[in-house]
Amino acid sequence: ARSYNITLLPGDGIGPEVVAVARDVLSLAGSLEGVELRFQEKLMGGSALDATGVPLPDETLAAARDSDAVLLGAIGGYKWDNNEKHLKPETGLLQLRAGLRVFANLRPASVLPQLVDASTLKKEVAEGVDIMVVRELTGGIYFGKPRGFGTNDNGEETGFNTEVYSASEIDRIARVAFEVARKRRGKLCSVDKANVLEASMLWRRRVTALASEFPDIELSHMYVDNAAMQLVRNPKQFDTIVTNNIFGDILSDEASMITGSIGMLPSASVGESGPGLFEPIHGSAPDIAGQDKANPLATILSAAMLLRYGFGEENAAKRIEAAVTETLDQGFRTGDIYSPGTTLVGCKRMGEEVLKTV
Amino acid sequence: ARSYNITLLPGDGIGPEVVAVARDVLSLAGSLEGVELRFQEKLMGGSALDATGVPLPDETLAAARDSDAVLLGAIGGYKWDNNEKHLKPETGLLQLRAGLRVFANLRPASVLPQLVDASTLKKEVAEGVDIMVVRELTGGIYFGKPRGFGTNDNGEETGFNTEVYSASEIDRIARVAFEVARKRRGKLCSVDKANVLEASMLWRRRVTALASEFPDIELSHMYVDNAAMQLVRNPKQFDTIVTNNIFGDILSDEASMITGSIGMLPSASVGESGPGLFEPIHGSAPDIAGQDKANPLATILSAAMLLRYGFGEENAAKRIEAAVTETLDQGFRTGDIYSPGTTLVGCKRMGEEVLKTV
Ligand SMILES: CC(C)[C@H](C(=O)O)[C@@H](O)C(=O)O
Ligand SMILES: CC(C)[C@H](C(=O)O)[C@@H](O)C(=O)O
Repeated sequence: ARSYNITLLPGDGIGPEVVAVARDVLSLAGSLEGVELRFQEKLMGGSALDATGVPLPDETLAAARDSDAVLLGAIGGYKWDNNEKHLKPETGLLQLRAGLRVFANLRPASVLPQLVDASTLKKEVAEGVDIMVVRELTGGIYFGKPRGFGTNDNGEETGFNTEVYSASEIDRIARVAFEVARKRRGKLCSVDKANVLEASMLWRRRVTALASEFPDIELSHMYVDNAAMQLVRNPKQFDTIVTNNIFGDILSDEASMITGSIGMLPSASVGESGPGLFEPIHGSAPDIAGQDKANPLATILSAAMLLRYGFGEENAAKRIEAAVTETLDQGFRTGDIYSPGTTLVGCKRMGEEVLKTV
Repeated sequence: ARSYNITLLPGDGIGPEVVAVARDVLSLAGSLEGVELRFQEKLMGGSALDATGVPLPDETLAAARDSDAVLLGAIGGYKWDNNEKHLKPETGLLQLRAGLRVFANLRPASVLPQLVDASTLKKEVAEGVDIMVVRELTGGIYFGKPRGFGTNDNGEETGFNTEVYSASEIDRIARVAFEVARKRRGKLCSVDKANVLEASMLWRRRVTALASEFPDIELSHMYVDNAAMQLVRNPKQFDTIVTNNIFGDILSDEASMITGSIGMLPSASVGESGPGLFEPIHGSAPDIAGQDKANPLATILSAAMLLRYGFGEENAAKRIEAAVTETLDQGFRTGDIYSPGTTLVGCKRMGEEVLKTV
């Protein structure tokens, strides 16, 4: 039997609740497809800070590296918001991404027919939206050096960061994006600010050059400000989007909100080799933590991405996705996606309903 | 009588058409309020490139600097899209902003009751949206050094830019934003990425420190990814937003699109002293240039901002704004904002209708 080791990083806030549910769903879907999954849980984020003094303990990173995939809940909370940079939960997340070298962040944003009313966009605009944002995750201004605080010629304090991309960093993320587009509707839109930034000019040049290897893909380019508009004006024009770390941070969140159901959206971060990192895109929601109110579906769908992109276990992935669809069809809803006429359930109960249909 | 000199920069595409209309409206509103306006027209953007070889001729910058305000149409077009950086129309615009030291870009995004249906957002979400984005315009990654192309340790090509802010650059834009918020609904949201970027950490620190000078303003902070979401989820939560150059580029375009009527939106860019720069936020729309189809209202409203923020001529500004509202109430619409039951008109005719009601 195929067997895999998964590191679970429940993290903070609602993280532990949604990861517990997703773990059960993973186990069951795996065993029904003849896949044995072994789990180990490690500390990460604010809870790691409280227990060990750092947001990503060495032991956690080592365990994550040695496993076949990592499933993360959520990190952060008001408690640690004013920490110094190296003691922020977010810093742990950036260290984890860098440590696992997961340079490609895949963030689907699709409007499910059952939830089209949850979007703030008009029904005819939201209906059928199905976008995949491929965000570069281990480069750009998030990691570029030099960075820090300095003094300028007038003796004033400055804060600075460096947006930098190398040719091979661009090529490898573009390649992933072309491949993703190929498995989707064959359209790739590369988003940059090549009318102003040199880093973007190189980006556009490299992406354009790679296009000859993917003659079946329709490549277009768009400036980031226009992309932010077009996502609101007509999101259906997009299939796959590829962009840098910071633009991807902004646009993928905008795209998710367009679907109206952030509590539903998973993500996958993968590298050239080694374990991938899978996590819901929502945050740790400290205000509802521990109240059994969280929507576990984004983490469950992240588990499906883990099976697909992490292990190539397509059948087990599809089983989970079908179970989520069926559970929604049966009318079960957590508070964030509730509408009159559906059945309001908590986090655990939603998990049980999905388990029944897996 | 009060008299002012205005430099007109019609630019490219639909620029000349909309500037011609706005000029007539300016003249009339001025003379009705006892203000004499003198105009001189200069080359800028692609048309300057074609005529002189550079996107911002020295003569244009000198004339702009010597005048009391600058009204710009739009710049750019397919023809110059693949030019080298220093020969791009956009580069001329950046040089103009830097040359005039207009560090504060005010971009209102309001949903007019007459045009609420033009938004892709649901009526109840769009109705009543009235946001002012205050964007830093002469610093940050747009102008930061070092920038360019290089080679990394592996001998690979890199492209790089520097995001940098000094304390005084942050203070002066924040001050403008606090003042703007004071004249509006007293709420200011500062947008940054202080959980990752040092430039943003300094930004947040300085804005927070300034707040004690404006105890009547309710200040909040938001990460840029969240702001991109919240603009879609519930734009009415925002009054005034202040942010850096690149985040402002993205978010102000997103906010404009939320109103659904980009053809209506003006902008003002002002500095500590010297002439301000006023321009519609829409582009040069080369596909409809010269066809009398452009919507001149954004440029007309930019002219109103010119009178208000450039000259302190509040009455003349209000006269223009009231005329635009009245013209819309009478049902006149250009193609971009047309809906069944209204009267479709061209650029010139729209201008004539506004003139009648000024
Ligand atoms: C928490 C933060 C550092 C992170 C990011 O900016 O990458 C988050 O916004 C995300 O998108 O995963
Ligand atoms: C044309 C371009 C350089 C410019 C910018 O990025 O500032 C434009 O997008 C704007 O917002 O005025």
